[in-house]
Amino acid sequence: MAKRIILAYSGGLDTSWCIPHLIGEGWEVITVTVDVGGMSDAEREDLAERAQKLGAISHHFVDARAAFYATTLRFLIAGNVRRGGVYPLCVGAERFLQAQMVAEFANQAGASAIGHGCTAAGNDQVRFETALRALAPGMEIAAPIRDLTPSRSQQVEDLQRLGMPVPKHGAAYSINSGLWGVTIGGTETTTSDGQVPEHAWVRTQGAFASPKAPTKITLTFKEGQPTHVDGVAMEPVALIEHVDALAASYGIGRGVHLGDTVLGVKGRVAFEAPAATVLIESHRELEKLVLTGRQQAMKDAAARNYGDWLHEGHFLDPACRDIEALLTQSQARVTGEVVVTLRTGSLFVEGVSSPYSLMAASGSTYGEAAKDWTPTDAAGFSRLVALPSILAARAGARAQS
Amino acid sequence: MAKRIILAYSGGLDTSWCIPHLIGEGWEVITVTVDVGGMSDAEREDLAERAQKLGAISHHFVDARAAFYATTLRFLIAGNVRRGGVYPLCVGAERFLQAQMVAEFANQAGASAIGHGCTAAGNDQVRFETALRALAPGMEIAAPIRDLTPSRSQQVEDLQRLGMPVPKHGAAYSINSGLWGVTIGGTETTTSDGQVPEHAWVRTQGAFASPKAPTKITLTFKEGQPTHVDGVAMEPVALIEHVDALAASYGIGRGVHLGDTVLGVKGRVAFEAPAATVLIESHRELEKLVLTGRQQAMKDAAARNYGDWLHEGHFLDPACRDIEALLTQSQARVTGEVVVTLRTGSLFVEGVSSPYSLMAASGSTYGEAAKDWTPTDAAGFSRLVALPSILAARAGARAQS
Amino acid sequence: MAKRIILAYSGGLDTSWCIPHLIGEGWEVITVTVDVGGMSDAEREDLAERAQKLGAISHHFVDARAAFYATTLRFLIAGNVRRGGVYPLCVGAERFLQAQMVAEFANQAGASAIGHGCTAAGNDQVRFETALRALAPGMEIAAPIRDLTPSRSQQVEDLQRLGMPVPKHGAAYSINSGLWGVTIGGTETTTSDGQVPEHAWVRTQGAFASPKAPTKITLTFKEGQPTHVDGVAMEPVALIEHVDALAASYGIGRGVHLGDTVLGVKGRVAFEAPAATVLIESHRELEKLVLTGRQQAMKDAAARNYGDWLHEGHFLDPACRDIEALLTQSQARVTGEVVVTLRTGSLFVEGVSSPYSLMAASGSTYGEAAKDWTPTDAAGFSRLVALPSILAARAGARAQS
Amino acid sequence: MAKRIILAYSGGLDTSWCIPHLIGEGWEVITVTVDVGGMSDAEREDLAERAQKLGAISHHFVDARAAFYATTLRFLIAGNVRRGGVYPLCVGAERFLQAQMVAEFANQAGASAIGHGCTAAGNDQVRFETALRALAPGMEIAAPIRDLTPSRSQQVEDLQRLGMPVPKHGAAYSINSGLWGVTIGGTETTTSDGQVPEHAWVRTQGAFASPKAPTKITLTFKEGQPTHVDGVAMEPVALIEHVDALAASYGIGRGVHLGDTVLGVKGRVAFEAPAATVLIESHRELEKLVLTGRQQAMKDAAARNYGDWLHEGHFLDPACRDIEALLTQSQARVTGEVVVTLRTGSLFVEGVSSPYSLMAASGSTYGEAAKDWTPTDAAGFSRLVALPSILAARAGARAQS
Repeated sequence: MAKRIILAYSGGLDTSWCIPHLIGEGWEVITVTVDVGGMSDAEREDLAERAQKLGAISHHFVDARAAFYATTLRFLIAGNVRRGGVYPLCVGAERFLQAQMVAEFANQAGASAIGHGCTAAGNDQVRFETALRALAPGMEIAAPIRDLTPSRSQQVEDLQRLGMPVPKHGAAYSINSGLWGVTIGGTETTTSDGQVPEHAWVRTQGAFASPKAPTKITLTFKEGQPTHVDGVAMEPVALIEHVDALAASYGIGRGVHLGDTVLGVKGRVAFEAPAATVLIESHRELEKLVLTGRQQAMKDAAARNYGDWLHEGHFLDPACRDIEALLTQSQARVTGEVVVTLRTGSLFVEGVSSPYSLMAASGSTYGEAAKDWTPTDAAGFSRLVALPSILAARAGARAQS
Repeated sequence: MAKRIILAYSGGLDTSWCIPHLIGEGWEVITVTVDVGGMSDAEREDLAERAQKLGAISHHFVDARAAFYATTLRFLIAGNVRRGGVYPLCVGAERFLQAQMVAEFANQAGASAIGHGCTAAGNDQVRFETALRALAPGMEIAAPIRDLTPSRSQQVEDLQRLGMPVPKHGAAYSINSGLWGVTIGGTETTTSDGQVPEHAWVRTQGAFASPKAPTKITLTFKEGQPTHVDGVAMEPVALIEHVDALAASYGIGRGVHLGDTVLGVKGRVAFEAPAATVLIESHRELEKLVLTGRQQAMKDAAARNYGDWLHEGHFLDPACRDIEALLTQSQARVTGEVVVTLRTGSLFVEGVSSPYSLMAASGSTYGEAAKDWTPTDAAGFSRLVALPSILAARAGARAQS
Repeated sequence: MAKRIILAYSGGLDTSWCIPHLIGEGWEVITVTVDVGGMSDAEREDLAERAQKLGAISHHFVDARAAFYATTLRFLIAGNVRRGGVYPLCVGAERFLQAQMVAEFANQAGASAIGHGCTAAGNDQVRFETALRALAPGMEIAAPIRDLTPSRSQQVEDLQRLGMPVPKHGAAYSINSGLWGVTIGGTETTTSDGQVPEHAWVRTQGAFASPKAPTKITLTFKEGQPTHVDGVAMEPVALIEHVDALAASYGIGRGVHLGDTVLGVKGRVAFEAPAATVLIESHRELEKLVLTGRQQAMKDAAARNYGDWLHEGHFLDPACRDIEALLTQSQARVTGEVVVTLRTGSLFVEGVSSPYSLMAASGSTYGEAAKDWTPTDAAGFSRLVALPSILAARAGARAQS
Repeated sequence: MAKRIILAYSGGLDTSWCIPHLIGEGWEVITVTVDVGGMSDAEREDLAERAQKLGAISHHFVDARAAFYATTLRFLIAGNVRRGGVYPLCVGAERFLQAQMVAEFANQAGASAIGHGCTAAGNDQVRFETALRALAPGMEIAAPIRDLTPSRSQQVEDLQRLGMPVPKHGAAYSINSGLWGVTIGGTETTTSDGQVPEHAWVRTQGAFASPKAPTKITLTFKEGQPTHVDGVAMEPVALIEHVDALAASYGIGRGVHLGDTVLGVKGRVAFEAPAATVLIESHRELEKLVLTGRQQAMKDAAARNYGDWLHEGHFLDPACRDIEALLTQSQARVTGEVVVTLRTGSLFVEGVSSPYSLMAASGSTYGEAAKDWTPTDAAGFSRLVALPSILAARAGARAQS
């Protein structure tokens, strides 16, 4: 009897190629797709159908969007996480949740192995295998793409030769799509100065060719989590999908990420993160109104670690739980409204308001009127704040005299 | 004989009011304007004329733009400094240089006091007085606006009563302009949700009403400093002014900064920083190509301190010299070209290139082809990188068994 | 009828002098001593008696030791907090709790003011007033020592003239004592190279003159908190006092702190922190066994902020609550035993053990036997970890060729 | 003709075993010992003799102590580097210099390979191979101990069978010795609670059994570097060796390091670092007198990275050069004297002095007399410093009302 393997199946070229390959190696293959967003119903059905055409004995689908938000995205919002100041971790953050759900399914299904389609040259192998080894220590791991390194064109050829379906984008672009954005890799991103063509963009395609009239939206946050758009309450997943579609139509959130991969080389990828861009910028500006400077400095430092560790495969390190505790506590007062204007290519935070406003708590107005202190207080403050610089100047003069 | 005071004179309402006031207190007033950019020749002449109409016995003008770049702005570029992720320190960074030049002039002019027009409610009093106390320890400091707190409308009234010239913006908006940007404070910025009207913007006024066709420019950096635009060599000051005018016409660099003031209250201000926005984003993307991840992490941490300390009045703390040494060393390889598309309201870094490219140094392509390692290496790496998470999971399981 | 003031009374010279002074100003004085440890029963009685001899209409005593541990010390242990790598915040951390309890008492007692004996030259005025202003915003604050700056010898003279009791140390040394240690300031600490004489030390006096035989103790921690000494369960306060007495007899925890005061000048003070030294070093070594490297790095960074902010008067900033959430979460597995040898002048952590040991979780032995990976894995890891350095070397060579 | 390999030879068991092994593999072996201290002349001769008895065709000796100080140790002093708050990187920091010197020799000697004796379970393989790959990219690397994993007892047996000399410590303890200290690994350090026996210590052996009378020494630093002991000028290497011998006789610097290895497992090792302990603690206290608080905070953060990156194999990352620039600048005023008392088991910094003293630059005395400000200034300062806490309290109250 064939041993059973559970293949984490995205529907892309790599994992599609894996199915017949693993069967050829003597495995009984069950595919599991852990959906973290970015798919239409048609795509979901297409994916299931293709899995079975490719030879999987069954296909299992998990809608993990709400879980992805609850375990991961809400902390990325709370932390205003953007790697290199730009990239909101569109892809990669979900690998841990996917690994966990695949591992749970593998245990229930009596499988002895888990397969993934990660390459030898990418970050995902590290994220996926770290998670699997921590969560399913006894399970064998099969990584045929990493270990055999078939080229993308070779894979297309192999599938065609077998008369099997080839995914839409084929070999041209490697596309990853989820609730938090899309990444697009192709010829142009293998150099530092290439730019993907307009037709390769997924969510913002054509937005710049036909600019829309600006629009103003109001986002409501409660304890750091987005709850309403223009006063209409929405569940987090629905809210993100709503904002994503709207902002994408303005071409917002398009970018290129040139960064340090887990492996130590530089990697470059185009990305579209409409909702992530709008939600993070809005949330960050609201925080400036309600958090003290020390709160912001501390949580920024913690969130930089959180984002880096998540990106680099360490989401399961308990250090991430420690940071989540800090982030959660820091959001206690991040409640209020943010008004944002969307224009083609840009967003502008018009203003923020909150019952916890630290601006409203002071009768003083920056630069104009001081009600919490007197000119004498300010002069005294100014004199004492200056002391380290003054003493350093004096010590220098003394030493030279 | 009247004692002589040197007044740091910006030409704005506050420092204009100070001239007759100080004369009334028995001082002989000499005005000094330390120009850090953002002024037209007409404004420079107008300012000198007004100083004398207001009663100054003489007016002294210092073009400090090149010095401002050399002592300060090049480090703000090297550090990609933006407070709160947004605000490029348009205003405030120049106070130390101004204080230094005013102090030097005061010593030469045999003055016994230096006057400034900072309010009791703003950051500048701290910056200015810290610098003066460190650099001119024996000099008396007069701060009539801070100490007497005349309102802006009161000041206008006083000047009018004396038949003296009132600066253009009068009481409506408080505007600071320099090489690195403009800040605009007014009624709308005293709340967290107001927005200054279109006519109050200075450099980007009207840009959104009549969008321009996108344009693409190439910026060249040498050791972290901008040297060419589209292949044309320019001195730093001229380059900044050139990029500023161009980017301003696209409405780039407009923003609102809600932040923590030196005094501990929240402050809010509108700003326009066209050149700063373009140069910092371009420089940062070029750095991603040539600096290792550790270099970026270290210099980001140092630059956060640098920006905060500069903003908060501590530019003369020797800690800033230590950071400048690190920033300078870090720029040794930040040489190359950046192609940027300007669109109305947004900029997009198309690509970067450098002889020091770390991307080109590897035969590998992220996500696709590994030439610097084998699949076996990657599997080994992946196994070891995962260890802390695995051991933590195992230790948890052991403790519970 | 005289208005009522509540005086925070330590029994030292400054607060003793305040009683008759405030009465002379027309106040009805009630003294409150918020005991945070470091006092004998005799001292407590003596202090009450002296307060009344000095003219207080009543004296109120609060045993705040357990609250001090619960609100503050357990976080200083969790964070291994030592300022400048040396000083465990023996004094200062308690000011917030004292201010809070004094403010609560003042409200109940219908007082209109609170008095304190802090000087104009020290940190405590900032801590105390910050806390009072945040917690009792309507209450007047009287700070006669700060505002009138009577010298210590003047104060002694004033009390003697009035025929009133003078505290034991008189003008020679300013001593602060609490659960977490003692600080000693005097002539020798006003320079950077003086050393307080043996007779001025409080808890470790004479320890070096007659060395004791070494002893070994076992400390048990549960979720980061010390619970047992040599297997005997103790309440935190009792445990700290027990360890303090024992370690003091070995001269452990004696030090000198030269640091940056809140005010910006350098300050120097001798201190004795026997229990704090033993508990922090033990706790830190236990953490190394059970926390991942990332957990330690993150909590160290957070704890540095926590210690600095506490020291500098910002304990009530919500940022401290955020850090406490992180610290609490980080301690979930800090459970186990630490064996420590005490010798005269030094302590040595012999070993640590825990059910959550990350060392025991691996079959591997550092430097000797690898069970969690193969030599091939290690070679692959080593190759990839090296990449940034290799690519940087290569890029440098390429650019020069 | 046999191909030539250069073996980095320490004289210990692992590298001794490598010689006959590599010869058996067909190599012509030349041994190179890059001496970074910790060796007597007798040991140096013995090592050369043994290399040749074991079959090396020649032995090359490099005295790298001065270079080790100049490239590495002076930065470890400038940064007060101690990993985990305890361990001064006694071992590991020298691997880069050793790799560089071995690589240079290999190139000159026309070798095609470099061999090392690092294990699969330790940090040194990573450090050594990173350095070799960056500095000698074309050279083959042979790592027989890592790849074949012979046990220490197996190695002893193999050498005995071949009639070859076995190093002194044989299989019992793995000892690494250098200018900056000794590490000792053995059975007891493979658990978290074992303690190496007295006879296994190398430099401090017996110090506690026969305590010496305390002694006081004066160390002089110039721009952060130690230059004199008790007024006698010494070269850095001689000074370190002098202080090491003296402090070792007091048992100073003995410790146990339980830490996170490069590989991700926990490692534990006993160490002796007499000179490092005395020099770092002295230097750090002197810095507290002459550096501002911001300088210390910034350089501490940079030095933490420096120490971690050095330990973890990234000394050749350009980030370390950036940090060295900061550290060098920060030491400009670290000039002065430190008086230290050495007692058996402990050291006590009695006092520090410097022409750049920031304490002497102020007429004020902490806690006692304020000459740089008035009580009114202090009251104003205290009021403004408190604002964030006050506003947060107020905002909380407002939101609840």
